[in-house]
Amino acid sequence: MTFMRDEIFEQPAIVARLAADLAPYRAAVAGARAAGVRFVLYAARGTSDNAAVFGKYLSTIHAGLPAGLAVPSSATVYDTPIDLRQCLVVGISQSGETPDVAEYVAHARQAGARTIAITNDDDSLLARQADTVLATHAGHERAVAATKTYTSQLAVLALFWATWCDDDVLLGALQAGVSDAMRAALSLDGEIAEIAQWLRFSERLLVTARGYNFATALEAALKFKETSYIAAMPYSAADLMHGPIAIVEPGYPALLFALTGRALPAMRQLERDLLERRAELVVVEDSPEGGQSGKRRGLRLPRTTPEALSPLVAIVPGQLLALHLAAARGYDPDSPRGLNKVTKTL
Amino acid sequence: MTFMRDEIFEQPAIVARLAADLAPYRAAVAGARAAGVRFVLYAARGTSDNAAVFGKYLSTIHAGLPAGLAVPSSATVYDTPIDLRQCLVVGISQSGETPDVAEYVAHARQAGARTIAITNDDDSLLARQADTVLATHAGHERAVAATKTYTSQLAVLALFWATWCDDDVLLGALQAGVSDAMRAALSLDGEIAEIAQWLRFSERLLVTARGYNFATALEAALKFKETSYIAAMPYSAADLMHGPIAIVEPGYPALLFALTGRALPAMRQLERDLLERRAELVVVEDSPEGGQSGKRRGLRLPRTTPEALSPLVAIVPGQLLALHLAAARGYDPDSPRGLNKVTKTL
Repeated sequence: MTFMRDEIFEQPAIVARLAADLAPYRAAVAGARAAGVRFVLYAARGTSDNAAVFGKYLSTIHAGLPAGLAVPSSATVYDTPIDLRQCLVVGISQSGETPDVAEYVAHARQAGARTIAITNDDDSLLARQADTVLATHAGHERAVAATKTYTSQLAVLALFWATWCDDDVLLGALQAGVSDAMRAALSLDGEIAEIAQWLRFSERLLVTARGYNFATALEAALKFKETSYIAAMPYSAADLMHGPIAIVEPGYPALLFALTGRALPAMRQLERDLLERRAELVVVEDSPEGGQSGKRRGLRLPRTTPEALSPLVAIVPGQLLALHLAAARGYDPDSPRGLNKVTKTL
Repeated sequence: MTFMRDEIFEQPAIVARLAADLAPYRAAVAGARAAGVRFVLYAARGTSDNAAVFGKYLSTIHAGLPAGLAVPSSATVYDTPIDLRQCLVVGISQSGETPDVAEYVAHARQAGARTIAITNDDDSLLARQADTVLATHAGHERAVAATKTYTSQLAVLALFWATWCDDDVLLGALQAGVSDAMRAALSLDGEIAEIAQWLRFSERLLVTARGYNFATALEAALKFKETSYIAAMPYSAADLMHGPIAIVEPGYPALLFALTGRALPAMRQLERDLLERRAELVVVEDSPEGGQSGKRRGLRLPRTTPEALSPLVAIVPGQLLALHLAAARGYDPDSPRGLNKVTKTL
C-alpha cells in the first residue's frame, strides 16, 4: 500500500462529509452576493489550477457568470493596478502556502474584489488573505501527487455554485449519488491495473475530453507526468482538432473521457477520427454504446447526474491509472523525483 | 522554398504595415469605451487561442482590466444564458470560419457584450457576427501551420490595447522597432538550422516561458507538433515547478524563452533548476549573461522594448525551428498529415 492509494480510496467519504454541512457555502454566497459579483477569476497552480478550470466551467455554464483564470503574475511580477470591483476572486491551494496565489488574492482584495480561499489548511497564508475561507477538510495529504485534495476542491466548488444557484438537484447529488459513483469507480481497480500493464512502455499519451471534463483531462495528464514521467498531453477535444491531432500516428495511445452529457457527440466524433488514424484508445465512459475491441478499451463508470458533477467521478480511474502505471514502470508514486509537496513559485 | 518559410519572412513587413494605420483601432476603442467595458473575454482555437493568451496578458497587465479565455462550449454545447454586459468579447480566427468561435461571438453579442472580430478575412462568418472587425491584412496564408497570421493577430491586439491606453511608447515601437527586431530574429536562420540537426531525433521537448511570453511557449510548442510531430509540452515556468518538472531526466531537451523584463529572474532560476537536472537547453534570450556551453545553446535576439512586445519577436526563432525540424525529420511543413487549414469544431 502507498499513501497515494489510501488517499484515492478516502475520496468518497470526504466528498460526502463536505456535502453534509452547507452553512459555509451559504455564508460565502451571501458575501459574494452582497458584493454584487458579476465576474469570476480563479488563481491557482498545478493540480489546484485544474480544479480552477472546473470552477470556471461551473461559473460560466451553471451560474451564467463570465469567468476566467487570473494572471497571477499581474500582481506578483508586473505589479499592475487593476480594477476588480464586482469581481469574485477564488484562490485555490492545497497547502495554502503557494506564495504567488496568496499574493494575488491579497492584491485582488485591495483592488476591490470579493475573495474566497479554497484550501486544506484554514490557517494558511492563503486563508489569511481572503474574505472567506472554504476548507476542503480532506485530512493531511501525504502523497506528493494530490488526489483527495483535488476532488475535495471540486466538491467545494460545486457546493458553492450549487448554493449560489439554489440548485437542489445538484446539492442532493453531492450529498448522495456522487459518493456512490466514486465508490463504483474505485471498483475498476483490477481492470485499470491491466491497462497499466498494456501501457507501461509508452513514453507518451494523449489525454482528451470536452466541456466539464476538460479539467479531468488536465488533471489526469498531470498525474501521469508526476508519478510515471510519461509525456502526457492534455487537450480539449475542440483544440485537438485544430492542429495537435497531427502527432497521432498508428499505435499512438490516447485516453478519452466521454461521459454522458452535451459534450458526448463531439467526443464520439473525436473517437472515430482517432480510430481512423489507428490510435489505440482507453475510453472512460458511462454509456453502453462504446464496447471493447483490440484498439479500444472501455472503462465503464456508473452514470453521474447531473453532468456537471461527472468530473468528481471520472478523475478516479485517471488517478488509479497513474498509480498503477507508476508501479508497472518501477517508480514510487509517493515520492516523485525532485518534487516537494509545497511549491514556492518565484 | 516552402510556403511556410516565405510566410515567416513576410512578417516584419506585415507588422509595419498594420501599425501604419491607427484609424481602425481608434474606432474599435471608441466603441468599447462607449459600452463601458470592464471585463474582457477572448474566444479562439488553436494558434489564434495562443494569440488570445497574449491578449489576456495585455488586457490584464497593460490595461488593468480583468480578462480571461471564454468557454465557447457555454454557447455552442451548453447553450447557457449569461450576463455579458460591460464585457468586451474578442473572437480571433485566421479564416474567420471557425464555427464555434463565430457562434460564441454571436451569442455574446445577444447577451450584451461589445464584440470585436480579429480575422484575416473581413468578410468571413466571424466578421459578420461582431460589432467591429479588426482585419489582420496578412495576405493569403498557404502553409497549414499558421505563422504570419499569428504575429499579425499579436500586432492587432497590441495596437488595440496601446490605443486603449493611449500609450505612445507602445505605438511607436509597433511602428518601427518591432519590425527591425523581427528582421534580426530572421537572421538567426543558419544557427537555428544547426539546432534542428541536433534536436532532430528527439520525440519530446519541453517549451517554457513566463509572463507575456507564455503565449510564445504555447505557440512554439504547437508549431513543433504540427510540422514535426514532436510531443512538445508547453508550460508557464510557474506551473512547471508545480509537478510537470518531474518528467525532466538527464538529457531531456527544453526550449526556454528568457527575454528581458519582469519575468526574467524567474526564468533564470528555472534555467538553473533544469541544468541541475542535467536537461539540455536552447535559450531564446536578449541579454548577454546566458552564453553557450555543451548543455546550453543561446539564441540571441536584439532587445525588444517595451517587454510587452517581445512575443512578436521571440516567436520567430520558434517558427524557424519548427520549419527546420520538419525538414531535418523528412516532413513537408506545408502539409502536415491529416490537417486542414480551416477546422470545423463540432
